[in-house]
Amino acid sequence: MKIFTLGPEGSFSEIASKKFLSNFKKEAQINFCNSISDVFETISKKNKKEFFGVIPVENMIDGSVGESLDLLYNFSSINIISEVIIPINLCLASKYPIKNISRVISHPKAIGQCRKYISKKGFDTENELSTSNAMKKVSENNFEKDLAAIGTKEAAKYYGLNILKENLEDNKNNLTRFFVISTSSKEVLNSRSSFKQFKDVKTSLAIHPTVDKPGLLLRILEPFSKRNINLTKIESRPTKLNLGEYIFYIDFNKDSHDKDVKNVLKEIRGLGDIRILGSYFKLK
Amino acid sequence: MKIFTLGPEGSFSEIASKKFLSNFKKEAQINFCNSISDVFETISKKNKKEFFGVIPVENMIDGSVGESLDLLYNFSSINIISEVIIPINLCLASKYPIKNISRVISHPKAIGQCRKYISKKGFDTENELSTSNAMKKVSENNFEKDLAAIGTKEAAKYYGLNILKENLEDNKNNLTRFFVISTSSKEVLNSRSSFKQFKDVKTSLAIHPTVDKPGLLLRILEPFSKRNINLTKIESRPTKLNLGEYIFYIDFNKDSHDKDVKNVLKEIRGLGDIRILGSYFKLK
Repeated sequence: MKIFTLGPEGSFSEIASKKFLSNFKKEAQINFCNSISDVFETISKKNKKEFFGVIPVENMIDGSVGESLDLLYNFSSINIISEVIIPINLCLASKYPIKNISRVISHPKAIGQCRKYISKKGFDTENELSTSNAMKKVSENNFEKDLAAIGTKEAAKYYGLNILKENLEDNKNNLTRFFVISTSSKEVLNSRSSFKQFKDVKTSLAIHPTVDKPGLLLRILEPFSKRNINLTKIESRPTKLNLGEYIFYIDFNKDSHDKDVKNVLKEIRGLGDIRILGSYFKLK
Repeated sequence: MKIFTLGPEGSFSEIASKKFLSNFKKEAQINFCNSISDVFETISKKNKKEFFGVIPVENMIDGSVGESLDLLYNFSSINIISEVIIPINLCLASKYPIKNISRVISHPKAIGQCRKYISKKGFDTENELSTSNAMKKVSENNFEKDLAAIGTKEAAKYYGLNILKENLEDNKNNLTRFFVISTSSKEVLNSRSSFKQFKDVKTSLAIHPTVDKPGLLLRILEPFSKRNINLTKIESRPTKLNLGEYIFYIDFNKDSHDKDVKNVLKEIRGLGDIRILGSYFKLK
């Protein structure tokens, strides 16, 4: 079993991967990729059942990760096989004590999520490419004794920094949703885990409309509504062909093999190109 | 007339601001802010009719700029008064000739948009915080003769670099949409411009559902559909309260003072908190 996800060590993607792996007895190896598209390319090349990718898809504060949705649509050999939700906790870490600190570095989104704490302390901020990069930079720095980083506890520990303060976020209930992806189907998980945590099923599909008329989205949604299928999410992404043309992403709480779902698909078939991105387990 | 937008010099936001300003005879001053939220805060503090903000809202490749949508919802004193669409053209720039170049630096999204060109040339890539930062860094570097940046022509010129190659993007028709925002209403534009370019009107609204039932989105869309009001966009953003709860953003080609639109608003009023983000001119 091999996992491919975003690095470096201590990233939220690594934390999600470990949560997913805790359902299996076997040890698995976590391999870091440089980008979400690298994860897709690696998984799709290796046509082996034991290769899995773990990718971020949605954060409660920032919303969807557009790149992940685009890649799920484009890589037709890859399915979503599980959903993993983890809490996002940010901490302040440095080599030096808190009384020295006047400047913090992190990813702009992490800085944005800790705005109240930063402004209360009056810290200056500087942007870095990721929270883990910020931790790494602070760990390598021997001269600036006023410098700290904001990131995960895991990264702070990995880079040998002192955790000066935990739970910095303005919104303490921040969650991020990840997908486990693979070229095999979700059933491979139940065959490998003895914990039987894999039960509830959800489906994600994408539709690229091929007809252009007012009320098109309405006509896509109606067949779901009349069968009482509750949509848990609807999202639009640009087609990349013309500004103002969208692919719609729809999530709902049923398996794609369900009879009602099959009837919905029949009804909306003529409205666009439909792609089932996966029927997958919700990991509790 | 003062414009507040994202810097530094040569940014796409500055190019959009200049396009907007070309409709007015008077010279205007462009001021750079560090973040989109800084633009909102500056504009909302200065309660003067001559203060305008220019913010990115949607790119044809990357999709919506979530932060801009969130801020439009949160700053109720600020209206959208115009839409500005500009083409995104990326160039390769350096102090040194093309034959020396083996490494390029830029914002990860810009690198992603030039993937074909970069892979054809076999360049190594490194991420920077923005395309303008990459240009600045290349201009300040006197030692690495193999280094180039990807960004706007305007930034390359501003930082005194040689443009080695233009139109690097895989997709040559890439457009980005900006909003001009203000505490005054759109009519202020026609009173100031002699060009009469400000004609076609569009409206953006947001709805935060307060009832939770299957088919809710359908019930929001139906009143538009039965009056043949064509929705040009629908987008969901997290409420930031619970994962899986969304605010819906809807764009359509009518003024919010239109009688049909008023009737739609009456019908959907009971479904959630509705905010008109602005009825605004489409700038040609």
